[in-house]
Amino acid sequence: MREARLKTLVVVGVGLIGGSFALALKAAGRVDRVVGVGRTRENLQHALDAGLVDEVAESLACAAPGADVVLLAAPVGQTGRLMAQLAPCLNGRTIVTDAGSTKQDVVAMARTFLSMHIARFVPAHPIAGMERSGAAAATAELYRGRTVVLTPLPETDPAARDTVRSLWEACGAQVVEMAPDHHDRVLAAVSHLPHLLAFALMDLVGRHAEAETFLRFAGSGFRDVTRIAASSPEMWRDICLANREALLALVDAYCAELDEVRDLVAQGDGEALARLFARARQARQRLDQEA
Amino acid sequence: MREARLKTLVVVGVGLIGGSFALALKAAGRVDRVVGVGRTRENLQHALDAGLVDEVAESLACAAPGADVVLLAAPVGQTGRLMAQLAPCLNGRTIVTDAGSTKQDVVAMARTFLSMHIARFVPAHPIAGMERSGAAAATAELYRGRTVVLTPLPETDPAARDTVRSLWEACGAQVVEMAPDHHDRVLAAVSHLPHLLAFALMDLVGRHAEAETFLRFAGSGFRDVTRIAASSPEMWRDICLANREALLALVDAYCAELDEVRDLVAQGDGEALARLFARARQARQRLDQEA
Repeated sequence: MREARLKTLVVVGVGLIGGSFALALKAAGRVDRVVGVGRTRENLQHALDAGLVDEVAESLACAAPGADVVLLAAPVGQTGRLMAQLAPCLNGRTIVTDAGSTKQDVVAMARTFLSMHIARFVPAHPIAGMERSGAAAATAELYRGRTVVLTPLPETDPAARDTVRSLWEACGAQVVEMAPDHHDRVLAAVSHLPHLLAFALMDLVGRHAEAETFLRFAGSGFRDVTRIAASSPEMWRDICLANREALLALVDAYCAELDEVRDLVAQGDGEALARLFARARQARQRLDQEA
Repeated sequence: MREARLKTLVVVGVGLIGGSFALALKAAGRVDRVVGVGRTRENLQHALDAGLVDEVAESLACAAPGADVVLLAAPVGQTGRLMAQLAPCLNGRTIVTDAGSTKQDVVAMARTFLSMHIARFVPAHPIAGMERSGAAAATAELYRGRTVVLTPLPETDPAARDTVRSLWEACGAQVVEMAPDHHDRVLAAVSHLPHLLAFALMDLVGRHAEAETFLRFAGSGFRDVTRIAASSPEMWRDICLANREALLALVDAYCAELDEVRDLVAQGDGEALARLFARARQARQRLDQEA
């Protein structure tokens, strides 16, 4: 595969994800010029000052016509609107890709809003979320050793797919391909459900009459479990709603599991409880071995 | 308060908790001789080799008579049996303390088995659990900056309490006092519930038909949330059963909270969902500010 090299990359939403992509490609010498587009002037100014982007554009309509690649890295709730703005500005050459945490909804939006251009759209998801967000958190190293999932469509142009793959590999990521619905089911289990559980725990404890005491005695375990509850509320609202079906199925499965554990505690069935905990520990240890 | 200095400390259960206590007191020059008692010869040998203890004793009955302080640091499920063994060997001078993660059950056992000696028993809980366990994980620095809760009884000898406090402070810990039932309710919220949630999540994912794929795509968020699911199954079985009442109340409160979140997702109520997430994030950020 030829190494992709871009004259102009347009990044829509210059936060942690988009900003780090830009920085990594610059560091790898794969892009001449990065143009940032975003909602808040302040964040764009920071992106300019920090060298994440070389220019900022007033709007997508101004920036898109000269782009080799447009990365949509704004919260996924804005994707439809952005694609609708983008569609009339595209020439046949521009590749559009995204960084959304859910893929079926993004693909559906692309079919609606980028219909004429669907072959040049490459749905992607870099699995590198952090509880920090914004341009200030961006780093050229964010994607090193991380996994990026591409969910190409039957009509996706293989050359466009290869270009996007090559760019993510230049960021140090390992690229894999999956079907959009499979991606969404897997991510519901290993990312969306854990976020929901952490938000719920943190909210329960934070709203409690004894919240001050609870927070005072919270140890490293509590801090680990709730770390991702500091993630962006807007982003996670969008993800939960976008992947509603797969997420609800898993929430229900989790509640059934928790009911089972609860019953073992209530019945004082220490043997079965220890067995369940040991099975969980074994699975967790497998995770560390694979890391 | 006078700085406590011991001729002989007996540690029952020379794992992470007991071994680190011994190491820290040795480093602080607060103990001349540490005697280890335990179930497995192999672990005791390691404790000897690593200098956590100076001697090992065949049994509690052999070790206890010469002790200034006996620390019970075995899994809490063994506490009753150990106290029953210990009671006949105690003189009026020996202080007994423990390191159990639950306090009401330990206090009840002490009233039963150490009845004649209850004034010299100081219930304690160092909040410094880690997912690692065993003598090999022990370190003199484990308690530095950590919180240790004492839950003295109305009949506790103030001098015994002060000695135990002084020893923990020598380990670098901050010592606070609480009532046993209050301790158990607080720890149920910030430690026992999170462990149960993490075990349940890890078991759900590990038992799933797609477990291999799930584990492959698990990112840092999933790793954080499930880290404590690698904790000792035996220890956590004991804790869950010992603190059953407070824990079940919190599991129920958590299920109600999760139901609420689930309904918001199912109804597509993005506004309320973002509000709940933002409230959780705020509470989590408060936790970091207090750290």
